[in-house]
Amino acid sequence: MASHPGQLQPLAAQAARLDAEHAATDLRDRFLLPSGVVYLDGNSLGALPAAVPAALERVVREEWGRDLVSSWNAADWWNAPTRVGDLVGRLVGSARGQVVVGDTTTLRLYQALRAAAVMRPGAGVLVTDAGSFPTDLYMAHEVAAEVGWRVELADPDDLPAVLERIAAGGERVAAVAFSHVDYRTGRLWDLPGLVAATHRVGALAIVDLCHSAGALPVGLDDSGVDLAVGCTYKFLNGGPGSPAYLYVPARHQAAFANPVPGWHGHADPFAMTGTYEPAEGVARARTGTPPMLSLAALEAALTAFDGVDVAAVRIRSLSLTRFLRACLEALVPGVDVVTPRDDERRGSQVSVRDEHAYGIVQALIGRGVVGDFRAPDVVRLGVAAPYLTHTEMLTAAAAYADVLEAGEHLDERYARRSIVT
Amino acid sequence: MASHPGQLQPLAAQAARLDAEHAATDLRDRFLLPSGVVYLDGNSLGALPAAVPAALERVVREEWGRDLVSSWNAADWWNAPTRVGDLVGRLVGSARGQVVVGDTTTLRLYQALRAAAVMRPGAGVLVTDAGSFPTDLYMAHEVAAEVGWRVELADPDDLPAVLERIAAGGERVAAVAFSHVDYRTGRLWDLPGLVAATHRVGALAIVDLCHSAGALPVGLDDSGVDLAVGCTYKFLNGGPGSPAYLYVPARHQAAFANPVPGWHGHADPFAMTGTYEPAEGVARARTGTPPMLSLAALEAALTAFDGVDVAAVRIRSLSLTRFLRACLEALVPGVDVVTPRDDERRGSQVSVRDEHAYGIVQALIGRGVVGDFRAPDVVRLGVAAPYLTHTEMLTAAAAYADVLEAGEHLDERYARRSIVT
Repeated sequence: MASHPGQLQPLAAQAARLDAEHAATDLRDRFLLPSGVVYLDGNSLGALPAAVPAALERVVREEWGRDLVSSWNAADWWNAPTRVGDLVGRLVGSARGQVVVGDTTTLRLYQALRAAAVMRPGAGVLVTDAGSFPTDLYMAHEVAAEVGWRVELADPDDLPAVLERIAAGGERVAAVAFSHVDYRTGRLWDLPGLVAATHRVGALAIVDLCHSAGALPVGLDDSGVDLAVGCTYKFLNGGPGSPAYLYVPARHQAAFANPVPGWHGHADPFAMTGTYEPAEGVARARTGTPPMLSLAALEAALTAFDGVDVAAVRIRSLSLTRFLRACLEALVPGVDVVTPRDDERRGSQVSVRDEHAYGIVQALIGRGVVGDFRAPDVVRLGVAAPYLTHTEMLTAAAAYADVLEAGEHLDERYARRSIVT
Repeated sequence: MASHPGQLQPLAAQAARLDAEHAATDLRDRFLLPSGVVYLDGNSLGALPAAVPAALERVVREEWGRDLVSSWNAADWWNAPTRVGDLVGRLVGSARGQVVVGDTTTLRLYQALRAAAVMRPGAGVLVTDAGSFPTDLYMAHEVAAEVGWRVELADPDDLPAVLERIAAGGERVAAVAFSHVDYRTGRLWDLPGLVAATHRVGALAIVDLCHSAGALPVGLDDSGVDLAVGCTYKFLNGGPGSPAYLYVPARHQAAFANPVPGWHGHADPFAMTGTYEPAEGVARARTGTPPMLSLAALEAALTAFDGVDVAAVRIRSLSLTRFLRACLEALVPGVDVVTPRDDERRGSQVSVRDEHAYGIVQALIGRGVVGDFRAPDVVRLGVAAPYLTHTEMLTAAAAYADVLEAGEHLDERYARRSIVT
């Protein structure tokens, strides 16, 4: 940082002012973070909420170890998927009884797409975004092959025109599947607009919330989304591989067909009958026995949002990402920020395109600034607003400038490829 | 117990003798069990292995909290599903590289049955056992409907004849799916014999190991099983809802098609390409990000089997269940034990049929003997050999006799139905 003293001083003062201004939404004390690290990868794995270790210890030693199998009743493990689902639901704008937690995002996508095929019989097209996360694309192609859909790739910006063209061509669209926030660029799509365009052609809107849930108001019910999925280990801080969720609004629950019917989704599971009869409500989307320890950690983790309105998190996030961009542009000559500048179009990250992206990320980690690399050329700086400050945004940008100035990113160790999710 | 002093004394002496004889396989000190409880529900939820709490605390505080996203590399979270898969593999007779852990048994069954359909194109029949666990039956019917199979229900004892009849009728059998041990009766099926009969008609043998893995030698490779699934929260003690597993022997891996393709099963996951290309080996059966906390608990739990041969567990288990049956028959007039007397046909439980089964189970719990009820009329006493003693078998049987004698099971509170898995 020694190289930019003249630029740093006013930015540092601004950071301090902004941190004071946003002090009410600084929830750092609800998390356990290592010292000396600016953690900008909370959109890959959220930080450890302070409530988790003791809660998990209690579940392990008391609910499992002492009370044993009785905890399915006594600790109400049985209803954890819908109970925790309601906690997630509050954060994504869903009324109670419409979100179920468990399994992986992969499986939840599979369920959503297969269910959509049943809900739109005879429709032959699935429209999705080529920029979607790989799993979303694999699932789109997998289910399309199973149910006989044609897959049309479309940029969400072009969606209304694409849908009209398909309709004009005489084809019926079954579903439009897209991510609320692009995992690489951090671009935020207009959810109500995309849902409206989707509904105009009679299709179902299926949304992946991995990169928006917990970071910004999603408004599922208000937007009229038909089905939604998401993970809980990013901005919801549920822990590595914490269970995913599926949103099925009340109006679609009776028609929701679970392609992976397990006994936990049965109307009368302990009758142990050999014939599947789906449970009422969103519980019918359950599969087998959920991973209770991971689920218990998630339940405790979500207490970090107790008393918090996601709208307030969003205000803080926008200020942080706006300031991070400003710092990068001030300190890093020629920096190519690919995340939209417009608040309305920006998720909770700042992504930079650079051919040396992998080396930059590695060199930043060496300086205690943890972001991540996304192939082929993106430095992704995730901003989990509850536990980050404007001062840290400046620290990160200054480190970025220093890395480039020292040429640390060109070190030959950084030939390629990381393993981070 | 005061009512059977004459009968109890010789049984108590016998229990002590047997416990001394089997002292080498008493692994009680590897588990944390509450005092005053005889836990006969380890086939629903295994007891807490002593290694788990500290291991999980370390994973939470250090790997997640301190090292954050770097643990996908540094702690090798990425390979946990196959690394832990190998640990499970050793206990079920699989060579390394053929078992993957993650997801639910429900999903693993779905994958196995869907894969079987791809491996046996054109074959039109799935044979399964009507006595299978409900999820297995739901999956059989679900996949059959998807791929166009007819489902034929057959008692495993009749399997050779049934398969020959179907073949004689000109139909091809795609797969035979059965449970190694019947969850209700505890009946153990002859795995090599069933596999051989299945292979004689060119079908695939798919086995559910939920009630045998960790309790007795399974010998997957030796038996020629084609695909197998199981949970890890029963005799493997992985904790509530710990991840399930799938066995795909090396000879079938290239042909294994994953119907739920996620990025964790991709050949080059971090290339983040939009086209699915399956990984080499059993890793192709992975879906999305696994529940690492539950998986870490399972990995620690499996250390309870360190240095232990499942054959030795089996010897202890047979002695315990044999003695439990003997005690019940000695102390409970007219007791109707439905679990086979023959060692070769008995899993690791003793089930009793009684119209008042639910009340008996509840009254036993009131006396500190925890078994479970299985609809409609079964008292299921699971015997997890590593942490149980012959003396406890006698305690349980004596409590059973006392419950009946006192009529505690007829209490009107016990109208019906429990919630235990």
